[in-house]
Amino acid sequence: MTKFVYMFDEGSSEQKELLGGKGANLAEMTRIGLPVPYGFTISTEACNLYYESGKSIPAEIEFQISKALQNLEEKTGKRLGDPSNPLLVSVRSGAVHSMPGMMDTVLNLGMNDQTVEGLANLTKNARFAYDSYRRFIQMFSDVVLKVDVFYFEQFLEEYRIEKGYQSDPEMSADDWKEVIKGYKDLVEKHAGRTFPENPKEQLSLSIRAVFDSWNNQRAIVYRRLQKIPGHFGTAVNIQSMVFGNMGNDSGTGVAFTRNPSTGEAKLYGEYLINAQGEDVVAGIRTPQPIATLQEKMPEVYEQFVETSHLLEKHYQDMQDIEFTVERGKLFILQTRTGKRTAQAALRIAVELVNEQIISKQDAILRVDPDQLDQLLHRRIDESYVRKPLAKGLPASPGAATGQVEFDADEAERLAKDGKQVILVRPETTPDDIHGIVSSQATVTSRGGITSHAAVVARGMGKACICGCDALRIDLKLKQFQVGDTIVNRGDRITIDGSTGEIFLGEIPMIDPQLSDEFQLLLDWADKERTLGVRSNADNPADAKKALEFGAGGIGLCRTEHMFMDMKRIPIVQDMILAETYEEREVALTKLLPMQQEDFEGIFEVMQGYPVTIRLLDPPLHEFLPDKEELLVEVTKLQMTDPNGKELHDKEHLLRKVRQLDEFNPMLGHRGCRLSMIYPEIYLMQTKAIFYAVAKVMEKGIDVKPEIMIPLVGHVNELKEMRKLVIDSGLQVEEETGQKFDYLIGTMIEVPRAALTADQIAQEADFFSFGTNDLTQTTFGYSRDDAEGKFLQAYIENDVLSENPFTSLDQEGVGKLVETGIKLGRSTKQGLKTGICGEHGGEKSSIQFSHEVGLDYVSCSPYRVPLARLAAAQAKIKHEQKQYEPQTQL
Amino acid sequence: MTKFVYMFDEGSSEQKELLGGKGANLAEMTRIGLPVPYGFTISTEACNLYYESGKSIPAEIEFQISKALQNLEEKTGKRLGDPSNPLLVSVRSGAVHSMPGMMDTVLNLGMNDQTVEGLANLTKNARFAYDSYRRFIQMFSDVVLKVDVFYFEQFLEEYRIEKGYQSDPEMSADDWKEVIKGYKDLVEKHAGRTFPENPKEQLSLSIRAVFDSWNNQRAIVYRRLQKIPGHFGTAVNIQSMVFGNMGNDSGTGVAFTRNPSTGEAKLYGEYLINAQGEDVVAGIRTPQPIATLQEKMPEVYEQFVETSHLLEKHYQDMQDIEFTVERGKLFILQTRTGKRTAQAALRIAVELVNEQIISKQDAILRVDPDQLDQLLHRRIDESYVRKPLAKGLPASPGAATGQVEFDADEAERLAKDGKQVILVRPETTPDDIHGIVSSQATVTSRGGITSHAAVVARGMGKACICGCDALRIDLKLKQFQVGDTIVNRGDRITIDGSTGEIFLGEIPMIDPQLSDEFQLLLDWADKERTLGVRSNADNPADAKKALEFGAGGIGLCRTEHMFMDMKRIPIVQDMILAETYEEREVALTKLLPMQQEDFEGIFEVMQGYPVTIRLLDPPLHEFLPDKEELLVEVTKLQMTDPNGKELHDKEHLLRKVRQLDEFNPMLGHRGCRLSMIYPEIYLMQTKAIFYAVAKVMEKGIDVKPEIMIPLVGHVNELKEMRKLVIDSGLQVEEETGQKFDYLIGTMIEVPRAALTADQIAQEADFFSFGTNDLTQTTFGYSRDDAEGKFLQAYIENDVLSENPFTSLDQEGVGKLVETGIKLGRSTKQGLKTGICGEHGGEKSSIQFSHEVGLDYVSCSPYRVPLARLAAAQAKIKHEQKQYEPQTQL
Repeated sequence: MTKFVYMFDEGSSEQKELLGGKGANLAEMTRIGLPVPYGFTISTEACNLYYESGKSIPAEIEFQISKALQNLEEKTGKRLGDPSNPLLVSVRSGAVHSMPGMMDTVLNLGMNDQTVEGLANLTKNARFAYDSYRRFIQMFSDVVLKVDVFYFEQFLEEYRIEKGYQSDPEMSADDWKEVIKGYKDLVEKHAGRTFPENPKEQLSLSIRAVFDSWNNQRAIVYRRLQKIPGHFGTAVNIQSMVFGNMGNDSGTGVAFTRNPSTGEAKLYGEYLINAQGEDVVAGIRTPQPIATLQEKMPEVYEQFVETSHLLEKHYQDMQDIEFTVERGKLFILQTRTGKRTAQAALRIAVELVNEQIISKQDAILRVDPDQLDQLLHRRIDESYVRKPLAKGLPASPGAATGQVEFDADEAERLAKDGKQVILVRPETTPDDIHGIVSSQATVTSRGGITSHAAVVARGMGKACICGCDALRIDLKLKQFQVGDTIVNRGDRITIDGSTGEIFLGEIPMIDPQLSDEFQLLLDWADKERTLGVRSNADNPADAKKALEFGAGGIGLCRTEHMFMDMKRIPIVQDMILAETYEEREVALTKLLPMQQEDFEGIFEVMQGYPVTIRLLDPPLHEFLPDKEELLVEVTKLQMTDPNGKELHDKEHLLRKVRQLDEFNPMLGHRGCRLSMIYPEIYLMQTKAIFYAVAKVMEKGIDVKPEIMIPLVGHVNELKEMRKLVIDSGLQVEEETGQKFDYLIGTMIEVPRAALTADQIAQEADFFSFGTNDLTQTTFGYSRDDAEGKFLQAYIENDVLSENPFTSLDQEGVGKLVETGIKLGRSTKQGLKTGICGEHGGEKSSIQFSHEVGLDYVSCSPYRVPLARLAAAQAKIKHEQKQYEPQTQL
Repeated sequence: MTKFVYMFDEGSSEQKELLGGKGANLAEMTRIGLPVPYGFTISTEACNLYYESGKSIPAEIEFQISKALQNLEEKTGKRLGDPSNPLLVSVRSGAVHSMPGMMDTVLNLGMNDQTVEGLANLTKNARFAYDSYRRFIQMFSDVVLKVDVFYFEQFLEEYRIEKGYQSDPEMSADDWKEVIKGYKDLVEKHAGRTFPENPKEQLSLSIRAVFDSWNNQRAIVYRRLQKIPGHFGTAVNIQSMVFGNMGNDSGTGVAFTRNPSTGEAKLYGEYLINAQGEDVVAGIRTPQPIATLQEKMPEVYEQFVETSHLLEKHYQDMQDIEFTVERGKLFILQTRTGKRTAQAALRIAVELVNEQIISKQDAILRVDPDQLDQLLHRRIDESYVRKPLAKGLPASPGAATGQVEFDADEAERLAKDGKQVILVRPETTPDDIHGIVSSQATVTSRGGITSHAAVVARGMGKACICGCDALRIDLKLKQFQVGDTIVNRGDRITIDGSTGEIFLGEIPMIDPQLSDEFQLLLDWADKERTLGVRSNADNPADAKKALEFGAGGIGLCRTEHMFMDMKRIPIVQDMILAETYEEREVALTKLLPMQQEDFEGIFEVMQGYPVTIRLLDPPLHEFLPDKEELLVEVTKLQMTDPNGKELHDKEHLLRKVRQLDEFNPMLGHRGCRLSMIYPEIYLMQTKAIFYAVAKVMEKGIDVKPEIMIPLVGHVNELKEMRKLVIDSGLQVEEETGQKFDYLIGTMIEVPRAALTADQIAQEADFFSFGTNDLTQTTFGYSRDDAEGKFLQAYIENDVLSENPFTSLDQEGVGKLVETGIKLGRSTKQGLKTGICGEHGGEKSSIQFSHEVGLDYVSCSPYRVPLARLAAAQAKIKHEQKQYEPQTQL
């Protein structure tokens, strides 16, 4: 005789095919000794037999069900339909593969006009009993009798209006009784039958309804999409309901096995005596801390502590548990992995290893790399309920508070007086740098997250919000307006650069915390990972930060940021505006020692770690005065002083600025294209590098520069630039009598470079994929324009699943990266490859980087810990994937 | 006994390995009966034996050479070293593979102090004889004795200065005698030996020198680069010199077998009696037309005519022949395929087919497609010697002349008065369209060949030059300046839009000519080609032109050009500036009937040929007023009328323009991205299309619209837009009761579209590769910026071999096109694919399009004939390549 019905304590998690996912899980929980409410499962084989028998339940199965029901009644001491101690059950489907939403649940099955009185009596709460009964009627009629919920809702709404009630809590037990009458009439009218009062009939109908649901339209479509075969069938789970509102020996609560804020290994949670789960949520009574349960119900508490240990051991993680005590008996209703703060996640992972519950690899996988970021920046206290005044683009992470100032000079002056300032500007130019340096944070109303302000702020690790176009800034009145709110100069605001939010006034902050667990987990990650992690750093301070956070070198040192210094800008402008080679040389000669000093500082910090230096990249006009401002000045001077020298000079400057103006500067005269036309620029830069190398080597410090040529699209560009670098190196070697050990490589940041990487590799010692620009060119998106104009809408409407500037687009851009690596290594087997740009600090992109075999990623110093962890996770996941058996369907 | 030396009449073209390329060729010409000056070839085997014998010529070979020399003396009736009738010869190397510049030639070998007298006597020109002698000494000493030419030049220079001569013609025979003495001293001093007077020694030394040259540094490097093995060796060719200056039965000339200007099948050329080739070049005496030779030397003429037929038959093409008559005997010195005009090329190709000399396939290959372009535009007379005032970018082909005007309104007024005007502007905006329409041509000092002026002009088939930054335009003074030249308003200039040149005054022009041969050859091409040719056309006039030129449909109809009409611009601006959906709808409702009318016109012309309509593509701000001008106006108003309504309005407009302003409009909010945010725009456009289809169908005309979505980068964009188009079609079908037959496809113009073409093909009936934009994004070049700033330098310095916007970059962009086709067809086997954009009208890109299996190319109407021819050539070449045996080295 085939067994079709299994009590929960007869099965195990192995029997998923027979008992369905949910059934096997309930059996497993029972098997390991958890106090799960009693119940039984009707197998998937029964379902198949139901269909084979022309959609009727064979007598054999009916018999086994009634035996199981008897068993359940014995175990619980309750009986289906017994008014003095009624057994109420839930009925749920449970297929082998999870099919969420395929069929609704029926709760409180077993209620009728008699048992409702019993429940009222047992809970001393008639209102609760009748509300439960009317809910059961509604649910059962919807799921089993196919009566549209709409009719019930309409009826209830009309009843409330008639009574003048605003909401359900105003309904009394008698009101519910009235509603139940109305509901039963509705059933009769729409289902063509009376509501079944017999609990066994209720159960039998529900089981059929679950079996039938296996072949409803929704389920068929779902299976087709998920490629689940139709012959599996679904199991049915029947479980007794428990009630925490049956007196002072009953109760209900929620608890975490460890503290979800700190990670401390101590029960954390709360409960209510004589209450159901809804009461906790409603917040009418104040729950008690879980610890007090020890006093109130010592045995139950003891059992709960044991159970929580059992659960942690079984699920190998901190659990979030819902429990109910019914007349002194503990039941676990639900358990799931608990949400936690970053700090707690780290501590729990490390302590679970120490407790030998999980392996180090598991611990590494347990912490979401994104969470680490929180720990490294000053941030707004999580307990603060956020009411932002406005929201812009999150251009540089961290929180800051200060008084509003609109002028860079003034910001500098205030900062010198010890004031905290937030600089607010329509946009920033190189002339504002001293203001950005002096301020706590910068906010602009125009420009994207690659705008001047954003780049400078990120470089300095200062918080920044860009493109917040809700701010209507009036520089004359020295105020900005958002809706009706006016914020004046001197008013205090707080900003969150990680979310782009701006708040009025001061807000409680949390300082960055780096715990021992943080260091320990990252040490484990380092031992695991094969992908290198470097940092982007443009100055010695950043380089120091990078080393502190565990970077294995500098993957991107952007020399243009060195040009943006207040003292240097006029010289840089002279260089750009030079009409002849000679004029340009004069300016370059002045810049050389400055750049040299920068490089010396970085090399000294890095002590022999590799430093990848990218030669000048952005279009020159980025260093020039704003064209529109100049135009306004010239127009004004033309009207007020048409023959003055100032007009003459400004006109001249405007002409030059216009000459350098470009329609699409992103795709214009920048990167190596600049030095292909003006080789003297890279010559100066490389000499500055080599002089710095020589000087630092003299101090006995090892130096490993990797000189990187940006924006190469054709091998001939790199060929010519490589020659220039080598010549420059030879010159300095001759002058200094030193020998330099360095590499020459290129950015791969336009599609053509990736597509012809076999040729380009002939001239390159390394490739660094500049995935920011590569994303711009592959999609044909200008990031500065796209993010404000359509990209947000694309993401919200699922045109794109993610922002490709945040998470590397593996289908498109990723294909080019793969092509680039493959072609490059086909020419030069050991070609070193890396990724620099923001993707280097994003976990799914890091996973991709590992999969395609890059040697390293490079990201901002603050994201280095994240990248180290993500790299280790990538490696572990990749291995697991390889050993994982392929699912067979 | 191995034969090492072959008389010219003993070999043939088959024996290239033995006789070298030149030797085999001379043998072949002799074999087919051409009167080539007699001579013989020393084989490559001799060269190898020379090296095997330790760089000495084995006696056996010496013997064969002297026998051949005897033979030559007999044939010519001259003897080496015979003062009364000296044989003079040339000695040249001749390897199997052409190795140009490997070794210099020795001419007039055999001259010495005796034979020079003989030559003087025979030519009655002592000056000529001594000049020839001193040239021989110089050449022989350089090539054979390795005396640097510099010494001889220095000596000659000093001699001239001493004599007070300005140039060589002032030198007398006695002067040359003096120089010869000096030369011989130089030889003695620098070669360490006297100059060899013995002609046999001269010959022997020369042969060794040729053998030695096989292994000089230059030749070794050349062979390594060209992968030519070193064991081949070189042959040596010894050929008798002939002289056309031996009296009135001698002469020299140059002739084409057909007229190179018209193609007429009649000898065309000129000659001089009693002269050497140099005399013809020097231009001191006026040559006679070739026809008069019939009278002067009837037999020679007869023989020459026969020879020219022979040559044409042999080389199967019109020949350009150099000939000399020595004492009544005709010699052919050189023959090569003659250069010709486009018109002649066509006629010759067609007539050679008619004469059964070549096949139709050959005829197709004979005409350079680029030449056809000349025939289709008004152009500057070729005989005019060009002295351009300035040069800009060739933005739209054709030549035009007219008076300079700087103002669009004024240009329109003048044109109404019947004046020819050339509109000159710093740059144009939509406000200038009426001026461009009224003018003969437009010139701008700023902007690239995709700038507003260029696009509009090309659309209208009007000549245009852009980005001519040499023009310093002063709109106040109404003049422009180039260097010191000032051109005032009203002055007449001529421009050539095909070269970008600007000329002062009026210049003779040639109108386009379409001959019968033109039509015939293109008919043959059509029968041959498998690649479709469509045309880009934005209006009925262009569509008519396209059909006239043989286009098989419209491959690109750009709807934005329809927006650029003067009457529509204000409505388009209303649409763009609309703040609400409702405001936008009002403007769109006005535009709909206008667009509908455009489409009706085009559909009527195209009579059932497919018409691919691209929905709105460029960024909206292209239709808006100039931001800088607005800024100046606002600034002025702020100073003069700070409370006026005009200021208020302009400020409002400026704010809107700034909102739409983009950092990189090429990569900004354009193409389908616009309609993803404002679907009502494409909805209006598609309705206009479908209404037009319905209306034209009512007239019984077949309509095949292909609706094309621009700038798709992700399949979801196309999915959404496809749905929009279908919905729009259904709506109009319902309204009109008609059923439409149409396709929906997409541009592939950003790399991501090509890389994910398998996904995109799921939603596309066709792909059209927009290689203009694809080139911009693949290289990361903004065309407007690149061409003015670095691209020209890249091409000049061979960083890039060609302008990738002119000729498709097959290594990079081409790879993406191939990927796109492959992936697209992997999803949808019969997917229709084409290319639109300028590459569709460029021959090497057309060849590529054929090779990768595109279905069609689309180009501007005027390039359709070119494309038809190039497509046929591509197919023929592709077939030939497949049957061609691979060269083995």
